[in-house]
Amino acid sequence: MSDDSSAAVGTVFLVGSGPGDPELLTVKARRLLDEADVVLHDKLPGPEILDTVPEEKREDVGKRAGGEWTPQEYTNRRLVELARAGNDVVRLKGGDPFVFGRGGEEMEHLASEEIPFEVVPGITSAIAGPGTAGIPVTHRDHASSVSFVTGHEDPTKEESAVDWNALAATGGTLVVLMGVGKLPDYTAALRDAGMAPDTPVALVERATWPEMRVASGTLDDIVDVRDSEGIEPPAITVIGEVAATRARVVEFLRNRTGAASTEVPEQ
Amino acid sequence: MSDDSSAAVGTVFLVGSGPGDPELLTVKARRLLDEADVVLHDKLPGPEILDTVPEEKREDVGKRAGGEWTPQEYTNRRLVELARAGNDVVRLKGGDPFVFGRGGEEMEHLASEEIPFEVVPGITSAIAGPGTAGIPVTHRDHASSVSFVTGHEDPTKEESAVDWNALAATGGTLVVLMGVGKLPDYTAALRDAGMAPDTPVALVERATWPEMRVASGTLDDIVDVRDSEGIEPPAITVIGEVAATRARVVEFLRNRTGAASTEVPEQ
Repeated sequence: MSDDSSAAVGTVFLVGSGPGDPELLTVKARRLLDEADVVLHDKLPGPEILDTVPEEKREDVGKRAGGEWTPQEYTNRRLVELARAGNDVVRLKGGDPFVFGRGGEEMEHLASEEIPFEVVPGITSAIAGPGTAGIPVTHRDHASSVSFVTGHEDPTKEESAVDWNALAATGGTLVVLMGVGKLPDYTAALRDAGMAPDTPVALVERATWPEMRVASGTLDDIVDVRDSEGIEPPAITVIGEVAATRARVVEFLRNRTGAASTEVPEQ
Repeated sequence: MSDDSSAAVGTVFLVGSGPGDPELLTVKARRLLDEADVVLHDKLPGPEILDTVPEEKREDVGKRAGGEWTPQEYTNRRLVELARAGNDVVRLKGGDPFVFGRGGEEMEHLASEEIPFEVVPGITSAIAGPGTAGIPVTHRDHASSVSFVTGHEDPTKEESAVDWNALAATGGTLVVLMGVGKLPDYTAALRDAGMAPDTPVALVERATWPEMRVASGTLDDIVDVRDSEGIEPPAITVIGEVAATRARVVEFLRNRTGAASTEVPEQ
């Protein structure tokens, strides 16, 4: 197929799948998934969304990690190969393609290979996770900024690119993606930076998935809460006054996943 | 209608409309707009989306600013009144309901009045604006965090809640919403905070609308660029190394609005 040099070059669509609920796909993402010749994906969009794409046009690049290329090099190469063979390709990425998703690298590779592409934003779990849990990431009274950061980095490393002191000093909401494992490290870093130990913190596990769970605590006790509740990746950490909102509203929150929360009061 | 105390209380859906392109509504938002009894909105979702809702179920709360309540008090009161009369109500908000949209206040009011509600996240223009312009808000090599902040505040005010020094110190991407008017103030504040004058900056006007435009410069000259290009609200400001990505990829960027860009090279 990739040897058919007579075919017009296809377009690559860098598409965000949203946080996992198939109804939180955009109308455009839904249309493109239906129209595409090939859908390149890894595990991050989640099973509920991947199951809506016919198996014969799905290609799991998460599985192709072996061989002579890194997973990212393999994905880059495969996108170009498929487009040059005339395929319209959806590159489906969890959340938004440009929020900690390496979509930027894929886009630059496509441009360098002269492959036409489109960007189709998706809903990031960094906003939707807190939101569907009853936590607004900004609030006029107590959060005039919100910062997203990845928890994958080791904040004790000398060369850490994340400046937790500066993030603490913003005074706004902090949302940490992929931040379950290193929770003890960055909560300690934020306390060392002067953030109050009683600052509200919430963990949102598998945001918008049917098995979504939410656990709440403070900067001081959230590691214990994580352990006692058994919160596991993937999860979002929300740090700031806004995290306390959930307790005030959860009784009337009717999201489809609300019932699975650890905090729904008995009625 | 609001006196009909025999009716079951309806549900209020706090729904994000996304940045303006009707295809960037979520599948769930599209369904709820079709099913709702009443859709309460202001101007922010934009004409392309509002035109998809039958006029007889639209109610423009942006117009009801007069009278004895503030616009926000009027909206809060109207949501409760309609739900108590048994209506399922979509409260449609531009972008995401919880990103500088006062959705948090509306949610807390609904809970305090014991009205059941759901939150339906939307795509924020803070991510989609840069994204569709070819600018990833994060990048593994040069943006390990991204901060969203409103430009509505006057940064020269003593009591400003936004700490531009701290935001500059994060080293990550900064995205300023509603930031056209005060661009001279906060770019000066960021330079005073030690941010390099040649830091790339992009302005994205009417993100994802048919008349979307993009203009690029540096922290030092972006005010002149704004003036010479005539960039007007609503627009997003992106500050950081990622803003330079667009120039490297725009030739192969095939978004529907790409042709209206000020920067598409002649071919």
